[in-house]
Amino acid sequence: MTFPLAPGAMIGILGGGQLGRMLSLAAARLGFDVTILTPEANAPAGRVSARTLQADYEDPAALDEMARTCAVVTFEFENVPAAAVAHLMKKGVAVAPAAQALAVSQDRLEEKRFANAAGIATVAFSAVDTVADLNAALARMGAPLLLKTRRGGYDGKGQVWVRRPEDAAAAFAEIGERPAIAEAPADFRRELAIIAARGRSGEIALYPLTESHHENGILRRTTAPARGADKALPEAERMAVSLLTALDYVGVMGIELFERDDGKLLLNEFAPRVHNTGHWTLDGCEVDQFEQHIRAVCGWPLGPTRASRGVEMINLLGEEVRAWPRYAAEPETRVWLYGKSEARPGRKMGHVNRMMRPES
Amino acid sequence: MTFPLAPGAMIGILGGGQLGRMLSLAAARLGFDVTILTPEANAPAGRVSARTLQADYEDPAALDEMARTCAVVTFEFENVPAAAVAHLMKKGVAVAPAAQALAVSQDRLEEKRFANAAGIATVAFSAVDTVADLNAALARMGAPLLLKTRRGGYDGKGQVWVRRPEDAAAAFAEIGERPAIAEAPADFRRELAIIAARGRSGEIALYPLTESHHENGILRRTTAPARGADKALPEAERMAVSLLTALDYVGVMGIELFERDDGKLLLNEFAPRVHNTGHWTLDGCEVDQFEQHIRAVCGWPLGPTRASRGVEMINLLGEEVRAWPRYAAEPETRVWLYGKSEARPGRKMGHVNRMMRPES
Repeated sequence: MTFPLAPGAMIGILGGGQLGRMLSLAAARLGFDVTILTPEANAPAGRVSARTLQADYEDPAALDEMARTCAVVTFEFENVPAAAVAHLMKKGVAVAPAAQALAVSQDRLEEKRFANAAGIATVAFSAVDTVADLNAALARMGAPLLLKTRRGGYDGKGQVWVRRPEDAAAAFAEIGERPAIAEAPADFRRELAIIAARGRSGEIALYPLTESHHENGILRRTTAPARGADKALPEAERMAVSLLTALDYVGVMGIELFERDDGKLLLNEFAPRVHNTGHWTLDGCEVDQFEQHIRAVCGWPLGPTRASRGVEMINLLGEEVRAWPRYAAEPETRVWLYGKSEARPGRKMGHVNRMMRPES
Repeated sequence: MTFPLAPGAMIGILGGGQLGRMLSLAAARLGFDVTILTPEANAPAGRVSARTLQADYEDPAALDEMARTCAVVTFEFENVPAAAVAHLMKKGVAVAPAAQALAVSQDRLEEKRFANAAGIATVAFSAVDTVADLNAALARMGAPLLLKTRRGGYDGKGQVWVRRPEDAAAAFAEIGERPAIAEAPADFRRELAIIAARGRSGEIALYPLTESHHENGILRRTTAPARGADKALPEAERMAVSLLTALDYVGVMGIELFERDDGKLLLNEFAPRVHNTGHWTLDGCEVDQFEQHIRAVCGWPLGPTRASRGVEMINLLGEEVRAWPRYAAEPETRVWLYGKSEARPGRKMGHVNRMMRPES
């Protein structure tokens, strides 16, 4: 494959949700076609793409067809089976981000080990494969600890607080006695996030630091740029650059950080893909995170990342999407809906970007 | 049909070119699905839409299927067969803009008569059905005159200058002896354009006045907003409001104007659709003309039309699209490519929006 990839080429995306949908819209602006691979019928991304292969992610025929027709393949979620990526790579397809970033991000223990090795601070943590491991972690780090499965789970699923040593066995049972990581509390005063991009020639572009507001493990709001973050910015940027460089990363990455009372930053986690904390860029930046990702994986030069205005991004979860008429009537609000028919509780149905007045 | 139309509904678009493509991208942002009807295989708009019906515009089965599945139908070009719209309306589909706007805009003679009746100035003109009519027009208005077929033709096709009375017969032959209109020269110093929108409740939103730069009848560049147009603005806005109101219009309309040396404005023509002179809004306004059109035809409130920055829009014609790497590398330039494979001379392959610095 020769980069930069010329318009007219087909880009493959593993995953058919809203991130794939917004990636596909960005690819279309730049003249690319998109093929979506998803097991889901009538997927949000498929309905705005040239082609949808409805199959399991490890389906050999679907992967072969993708390899035959796509110049580059990327993904919209980090739990893509490693076997699928290996299959594509064996067929000579350029997959970006590459397998190492996926492997590291799929395993919460490997993720923290990798970060620490790259000089990036995290909470204290310990591997937990047995109740005895968990007891040892409690003895060393004290309670409470946050017990998380090493793999799977998102939006707060697959994790449980261990508040007292005597709860260890029950907590380990609750996460299915799967390989896990026990984390010390972050004791953060707020959560920050930074969307980072790295191109095929190694150039890096960082969006402004933002503030995340979670409820029940799900992002509710992003304030962009984060206020009062001048001190945190250089360290956040250093962490992002270290992470992208250590992974020889290509594409957009969402990086979530804890800011502690003493101002110290810790890496919470990173996602090797476009990220909900970057949805504000759709209306706050000239080149949004989706176009930036397409540019990166296609070997195009990265675009500008400056915030042209302040934005408050608000997720519409479940039935909240029914408020669309109110948001549509607000002159300062841009509406993004994902084309999902069933508004299950907590499901991300859309988001709105509220432009802040320059003086605010 | 109940308006405002709820997200999840299917919008039908007649036509599969770049305007349909950008309408479809805008519809997707708002959570709508799109069905494209086009006779063309692998049409630019079809590749970003949920469904494509590849058939002639008057194909009864395709129109019936559109009527059965689409909550509202709109179009991306003004030469939609009247029979197709009549067929859809008979089946109870909401078609917007409505049949009258199409009928008036399809006939250059009717267009000018309608404009004059609505108090909007145009060049002097005369109906030409025979060479005798053309000779009479030359006797009354003098030479030169611009002879245009009443129907069909775009981007400068289907028209010829009659520079001397003795050329009348040859000129009429050149346009195929079809029903025509003879127009006096506009003697303009520049061409202006205004993108106007009217919603289902009658509210009107006007984008800033822009300056158009044509070559060989094809738009090359738009400067937005137009410079030194403070005096022209009120009259341009009055003309736009008169036209939209007289047509009881729903949707976005592209209105092209002549500005004469004495500052007087004349209507050149209008297109009952999104328009090339409005492509700058994609990067210069919070709500672009494509989203505005979707909002209007779906009965949503109209969005803001203020220019958030100045933009120079440059069309990429034919082989010019090969300059995409240069434009992609300019931080201040946004690239829009239409997914057309064959770069025929003069064919609109894409455009770029160059952001102007605030001080320029």
